[in-house]
Amino acid sequence: MTEPEVNPMADEDHREAARRALVVWSAIAEPGDNAAGWIVDTLGPVAALDWLLMGGEGDEGQRVRREELAVIPMPREVAAAVKASERWHRRARDAHCDILLHRAQVCGARVVTRVDSEWPSCLDSLGSLAPYSLWIRGGAVLTDVWPSGVALVGARSATAYGEHVAADLACGVVDAGRAVISGGAFGIDARAHRAALAAGGVTVALLAGGVDRLYPAANADLLTAVMRDGALVSEVPPGHAPMRSRFLQRNRLIASSAATVVVEAAMRSGALSTARHAAAMHRPVGAVPGPVTSASSAGCHALVRENAAVLVARPADVLELVAPLEACLPLELGSATHRIDFAHPHDRAVFDVVGGRGLTTDEASYRAGLTGREVLASLGRLELVGAVERCGATWRRI
Amino acid sequence: MTEPEVNPMADEDHREAARRALVVWSAIAEPGDNAAGWIVDTLGPVAALDWLLMGGEGDEGQRVRREELAVIPMPREVAAAVKASERWHRRARDAHCDILLHRAQVCGARVVTRVDSEWPSCLDSLGSLAPYSLWIRGGAVLTDVWPSGVALVGARSATAYGEHVAADLACGVVDAGRAVISGGAFGIDARAHRAALAAGGVTVALLAGGVDRLYPAANADLLTAVMRDGALVSEVPPGHAPMRSRFLQRNRLIASSAATVVVEAAMRSGALSTARHAAAMHRPVGAVPGPVTSASSAGCHALVRENAAVLVARPADVLELVAPLEACLPLELGSATHRIDFAHPHDRAVFDVVGGRGLTTDEASYRAGLTGREVLASLGRLELVGAVERCGATWRRI
Repeated sequence: MTEPEVNPMADEDHREAARRALVVWSAIAEPGDNAAGWIVDTLGPVAALDWLLMGGEGDEGQRVRREELAVIPMPREVAAAVKASERWHRRARDAHCDILLHRAQVCGARVVTRVDSEWPSCLDSLGSLAPYSLWIRGGAVLTDVWPSGVALVGARSATAYGEHVAADLACGVVDAGRAVISGGAFGIDARAHRAALAAGGVTVALLAGGVDRLYPAANADLLTAVMRDGALVSEVPPGHAPMRSRFLQRNRLIASSAATVVVEAAMRSGALSTARHAAAMHRPVGAVPGPVTSASSAGCHALVRENAAVLVARPADVLELVAPLEACLPLELGSATHRIDFAHPHDRAVFDVVGGRGLTTDEASYRAGLTGREVLASLGRLELVGAVERCGATWRRI
Repeated sequence: MTEPEVNPMADEDHREAARRALVVWSAIAEPGDNAAGWIVDTLGPVAALDWLLMGGEGDEGQRVRREELAVIPMPREVAAAVKASERWHRRARDAHCDILLHRAQVCGARVVTRVDSEWPSCLDSLGSLAPYSLWIRGGAVLTDVWPSGVALVGARSATAYGEHVAADLACGVVDAGRAVISGGAFGIDARAHRAALAAGGVTVALLAGGVDRLYPAANADLLTAVMRDGALVSEVPPGHAPMRSRFLQRNRLIASSAATVVVEAAMRSGALSTARHAAAMHRPVGAVPGPVTSASSAGCHALVRENAAVLVARPADVLELVAPLEACLPLELGSATHRIDFAHPHDRAVFDVVGGRGLTTDEASYRAGLTGREVLASLGRLELVGAVERCGATWRRI
């Protein structure tokens, strides 16, 4: 009973049984439920479900289940699972795989479970907090787009500036052949999805409620378009409501993308929780700065100050997060002149004193505090780069 | 001859001789001249001047000076100094201490040399690149204001946003009892000086040319006000022109302040050279972010991305640079709710399902996926913090 059923070498019947159990578990346990994750990982989804349904509800059921687990040498985890079994039990009675699959079919959704080949590998970083199943509407193949995709997240109450930057970065992500992952919410999320679609790219909206509900309703048109060219994805089955606790857990799925960029976020924005999840999974995190006078950028600035995110200013910076060696332009410090690259420290001083009116080398030598030979060497170099010219005995800038 | 004259225990005559030699050296060597710094440090200012004037100009003079230094076991430095002596020699003939001091007196300037008690200790970090003398107009005592002062620097072509932030930060610096150090230029510099004066604080303008010239001329009124309530300071004597190479060297003086903050800078702004100097002296460097759509903030963003500066968004962040333990507010991640601090993970879910219309514990238990006991415990905690209330058999949010 303690052998894991989730084994790619298991025969097709075992696999189908695991698949059906994972579908049911996605209806039983709330997203991010530690104890459920542990028991499913430990027993395998089928045995975990059998164990849960044994002994009925109430204290008697708990006693039976505790005895059943007596062989597992992890008393604390066992106790937590036995205690939690009570809260799963009532939902388990109501959760029937065929009904769940039928509901999905009705709204045009398909299901991908942990044992299916379309399961996105990036979710493995979540360990036992990974979802059991993903409910999907839309043709995008998750394995192709999610693990390499870039999450663009931010405030629902975004500013025009934030939306502009979100669109700019989304285009850059799409142009690099990657998908834009976001949460389908107002503000930054919506702008990122929209820009990705406009650029002809693929985008995935990870929803907190079931994919049958286009939530928020005001984004229904956008979410329909996302479904057409990408996918709507949720870890709870169709029919489940988008509760706030599910939004917070949904953020961990967004954060499992190749990188997460917070475009605009106030100090207590939910986008910061996505950044925290991404950091916990050792995914690169970027944050877009903005005016320090804008409360909508304060969360981004805090992330950068705390070294929880890299400052991201351009699409190239975002792509550097996911592929650091495709580097960007080096920072050039120290030169205040655009046109001339001074080859020698003296050249700057000589160029300065020469001026436009013409100067002999002797005068230039005195004014620049250099010897005649040093000045001549500088003038030669400056002539070479086209910065000065000789007019008889004098030199002047071009 | 190799004993350093710069010795606080030397008698007053020696000290006065050193003082006069340092005044002359400030007229002979260009700011930041390595070879001059080395010879003055090695021989002491008086002996270095004697050495320079020995043997006259030209190759014969160089031969005599080379023989004189034959005892010093640093052939490369000796060779550089002997070579450079040619460029110093002609200026040395024209530089007379009394004339320099008279010119200063005429324009109301005083001089502070390395051997004077008003010499600001922060310049010691520059090593042999430290100035020989400082020419000062204004009543501020440099030892009091410069080493603890904060440099606010940035683009001459600042935006309204940059000027606003410069003024805000300058007020914060002044309110903390520190001086605002800057370069007297247009844009960020001018705004920082002006705001410091308006806030009743002390500000110091470090000029690239002599303090007799109020440069740039359009800032003459501002520089006069800085002189009245703070000081104008230069390392070149009155009469010297503000050449561009002197601007770049002047930046190292600004950077010797307690901390340097770049408020706004394009990718090739001179303010970035100040930041580089400050980093080389192990001084804290801050950079203010701005819209990524503004070229005037691109240099600041690059500094933060390269870890060459800390992102600075508020006056408190600036003060944290100079006194890290006077900390600032901690970053709070993860909570999207302003009012309620959920004491237990279940509380969030229970709060979400309860809603405003009223729910029995049994209904809440099912919807939240928790046992009845868990829901009751959560409701108890939520009632305690005033988030929910009981209405007969049901609970609802307040």
